[in-house]
Amino acid sequence: MTTLVRNAWYVAAWSSEVDDTLRRFEILGEPVLLYRRIDGSVAALHDRCPHRQLPLSMGKRIGDRVQCGYHGLTFDSDGSCTRIPGQDKIPPSACVASFPIVERHDIVWIWMGDKARADEADIFYMPQMSDPAWHAHQGGALHIASNYLNVAENLVDPAHVSFVHPTTLGNSASENVPVHVVTEGRAITAWRWIRDAEPVGFFKAFGGFEGNVDRWHYYHLHLPSLAVIDFGSAAVEDRIAEDERDRGNRVFALHFMTPVDENRTVDRWMHLRNTAVDDAEASARIDALLQKAFAEDVAILEAVHAEERRPQHRRPIRIAIDRGPMVYRKRIGELLERERTEDISAEPTPAFVYHD
Amino acid sequence: MTTLVRNAWYVAAWSSEVDDTLRRFEILGEPVLLYRRIDGSVAALHDRCPHRQLPLSMGKRIGDRVQCGYHGLTFDSDGSCTRIPGQDKIPPSACVASFPIVERHDIVWIWMGDKARADEADIFYMPQMSDPAWHAHQGGALHIASNYLNVAENLVDPAHVSFVHPTTLGNSASENVPVHVVTEGRAITAWRWIRDAEPVGFFKAFGGFEGNVDRWHYYHLHLPSLAVIDFGSAAVEDRIAEDERDRGNRVFALHFMTPVDENRTVDRWMHLRNTAVDDAEASARIDALLQKAFAEDVAILEAVHAEERRPQHRRPIRIAIDRGPMVYRKRIGELLERERTEDISAEPTPAFVYHD
Amino acid sequence: MTTLVRNAWYVAAWSSEVDDTLRRFEILGEPVLLYRRIDGSVAALHDRCPHRQLPLSMGKRIGDRVQCGYHGLTFDSDGSCTRIPGQDKIPPSACVASFPIVERHDIVWIWMGDKARADEADIFYMPQMSDPAWHAHQGGALHIASNYLNVAENLVDPAHVSFVHPTTLGNSASENVPVHVVTEGRAITAWRWIRDAEPVGFFKAFGGFEGNVDRWHYYHLHLPSLAVIDFGSAAVEDRIAEDERDRGNRVFALHFMTPVDENRTVDRWMHLRNTAVDDAEASARIDALLQKAFAEDVAILEAVHAEERRPQHRRPIRIAIDRGPMVYRKRIGELLERERTEDISAEPTPAFVYHD
Repeated sequence: MTTLVRNAWYVAAWSSEVDDTLRRFEILGEPVLLYRRIDGSVAALHDRCPHRQLPLSMGKRIGDRVQCGYHGLTFDSDGSCTRIPGQDKIPPSACVASFPIVERHDIVWIWMGDKARADEADIFYMPQMSDPAWHAHQGGALHIASNYLNVAENLVDPAHVSFVHPTTLGNSASENVPVHVVTEGRAITAWRWIRDAEPVGFFKAFGGFEGNVDRWHYYHLHLPSLAVIDFGSAAVEDRIAEDERDRGNRVFALHFMTPVDENRTVDRWMHLRNTAVDDAEASARIDALLQKAFAEDVAILEAVHAEERRPQHRRPIRIAIDRGPMVYRKRIGELLERERTEDISAEPTPAFVYHD
Repeated sequence: MTTLVRNAWYVAAWSSEVDDTLRRFEILGEPVLLYRRIDGSVAALHDRCPHRQLPLSMGKRIGDRVQCGYHGLTFDSDGSCTRIPGQDKIPPSACVASFPIVERHDIVWIWMGDKARADEADIFYMPQMSDPAWHAHQGGALHIASNYLNVAENLVDPAHVSFVHPTTLGNSASENVPVHVVTEGRAITAWRWIRDAEPVGFFKAFGGFEGNVDRWHYYHLHLPSLAVIDFGSAAVEDRIAEDERDRGNRVFALHFMTPVDENRTVDRWMHLRNTAVDDAEASARIDALLQKAFAEDVAILEAVHAEERRPQHRRPIRIAIDRGPMVYRKRIGELLERERTEDISAEPTPAFVYHD
Repeated sequence: MTTLVRNAWYVAAWSSEVDDTLRRFEILGEPVLLYRRIDGSVAALHDRCPHRQLPLSMGKRIGDRVQCGYHGLTFDSDGSCTRIPGQDKIPPSACVASFPIVERHDIVWIWMGDKARADEADIFYMPQMSDPAWHAHQGGALHIASNYLNVAENLVDPAHVSFVHPTTLGNSASENVPVHVVTEGRAITAWRWIRDAEPVGFFKAFGGFEGNVDRWHYYHLHLPSLAVIDFGSAAVEDRIAEDERDRGNRVFALHFMTPVDENRTVDRWMHLRNTAVDDAEASARIDALLQKAFAEDVAILEAVHAEERRPQHRRPIRIAIDRGPMVYRKRIGELLERERTEDISAEPTPAFVYHD
């Protein structure tokens, strides 16, 4: 059975990945053609001519239209067919599927599910994305040979940090600190504070702390696969309360996970920060630090996926620190069941709910 | 279900591909050993020892016989076993299958189906192959990762030329010119004339035309997978009629498509021409022009095959220009059904019928 | 159906392949972690954390324990869990499977089957392994893309030597010499003598024979997949009897075949010899000679396996020289059936029986 949730807004690309050329992406197992119209807006078509199935991305643009490279069938950017060489009649069935697209904050969002349920109000947003006191910086895209559930689960799992990222995002001070998990709206949040401990590598390098700090990790995982990791540190002397995190060095790492198919995931990541707002060099340094940590995750996630595909003789065990992942998988299962059965009394599709 | 028609003569190799060494080919999903006997004739055996299944092509020749490289079982070139080391008795079951072979005009033909139905009279022939007024030139072999039906269909489809080969075999003048399709005996013919238009790249380079020309394309597709493309141009001033094509620059491009298996096809191609008959340099120039065009086809055909193997959500559409391909696929379906059900009242196997 | 016999001692590694680092092996389709404890003994654990399935070999050692690289679960070298970060309670189910290990004569033996049936007395041994009159030399490990039955069968099959190894282990003098096959305890023995013939390449190079020799090959194949090949030569003038082989140049080539899975086998090979006992250079020369012969086998065995996986239209034939392989496959079939059905009246697991 599929693990892929269709009724959701996914990040199809950074805005910078889409231009006036015809480019093929794979999202939820489907080939998708993305290109910019002359007016700059983004068009998204199923990347397969309905005639002989050549990817339309192998054709060419004629204005805002796309002409198939095999027999010249031509489609408008909404997918309707405008020309079939050799005949005058163009039946409506000669169309290609299009996908709703919304571009905001340099991110191209796509809706691969039931169009009637696509509501732009559900697209992820957090106020810091448009707050001049915060700096937003797009990082890169991780191409991970692992099911998206493994990737997403990792981002509502503070406990792995001590072991996978001992020199960057974690250290041994946090190995046994308990994790709290709550569910708010459609987001699952796992968090923990490590008080009065040595700063981790990231904040040694970036925050310039020398003495002990209070450190927090809040992992907000929005269904189906979008994570906001709120992490930061403040000097112990500042005695900040849990709701005073803006007083410290605070970073939001955002992960937009888009399933390529059941076995591959693209994780586009970016960060928002409340310090060094005008410091371009800081962005590069943070990227380098995060990339080191993410490479550690990728090695783990790909090995886990490969191992899960081998013959199994027993059920995996679940432990106390798995509360975030367990809630997450349970709720994904509910979403999938709702999509599988076309429940006409179902609630609206999963929306983003942000509470600071 | 298989798409492979077994009761037909296929091109196994150019004559130049077969010599006294043991060489393995794959045809219709079967491994085939080809080699020349001492008298120069070609032997074709199933390339698998009936004992421990080592490919016989890994063994060695002993005169006209083949000795398996594992335990020395030795087979005559007709497949009968002549020696089993360690025992004197050689039961008839210790044979290896052989395949009927006919070599003509530097082409090695093979019959992979029911031997009782193999009739040499069915082997493709056209008079120009032995007419000194025509020059025959073997090109190469395209190894294409696509089902042979896609490859063959492309050769009864004049409409793709304008879009796939805009600089070589076609140009935009023909985009909307209607295609005629007729069925003659066991061949399907699609053709069209483009009158009084700019010459295409091929005939600019090869025919030396400067003004407008009358151009024709006749695609004869013989079941199951042999194509003769009759194309040429004549100056508009010559006012040639449809049946006067020999008055123009006329080229027959022949494609002998042999399925390797359901996913791969070898397309051996050659041409016959009525000009520059003694000009070896012209052959090389024509090869180069055709190779450029064929590379364009290969890119398309492999992409189509890959896309056809992805999950499908709808039926592909058929359009007016598909008449040739549609007739072709329908008739292949009939052949397959006849082979599948061992219809003992069936007509003879598909034969070549050539009408000029 | 599986071809893999589980209730047997297999060679997991040469002793030199295991040290204090965490190293992953694949045996009978299972991932196995091998490492040396501080006291030098070898631990073998299923290489998969029972929690999120990360290979434990990607974790790190803490004393004799292994800490998972994802969430820090820690296991003793017997597989019991000693720590689960974030919780105090450690249920017994949080363990990882361990495998019985015995290390002898620089060989690490593993038992992958029913632990209750593991009896160290069944581990292969031959007196020459600890006899100072004999020199034991470990060669290498062949990684072969072929089912282990093909590899093992080849080692109870003297007949292939003439054809596969004409310049090293065999020559044409033996092509028609009959093979004797007996079953002794749980070993199958095939042998033949070639009297008064030209020495084979191996003994030309190694034995220094110039005139004709008497040559023998005894293939002892112990179920499920351990071979002892007793081969040697003596000058014809010495007129040695069948039971006087120690008077000649005698070599035991040992093959410890461990299935990786149904499609791959590791064949660790070594030899014992009664001459040049203190001559290290002789070992290297013998290794080189054997490696040349084994490369010839690997090419055959991989081609046979590939061919066996293609579509089959007929049953392979069996011939007189197949007696060894036929007895072997029949007895493997019996072992598999006994394992498949959990016969509680079954005899003990297959044991090594050595008769000189």
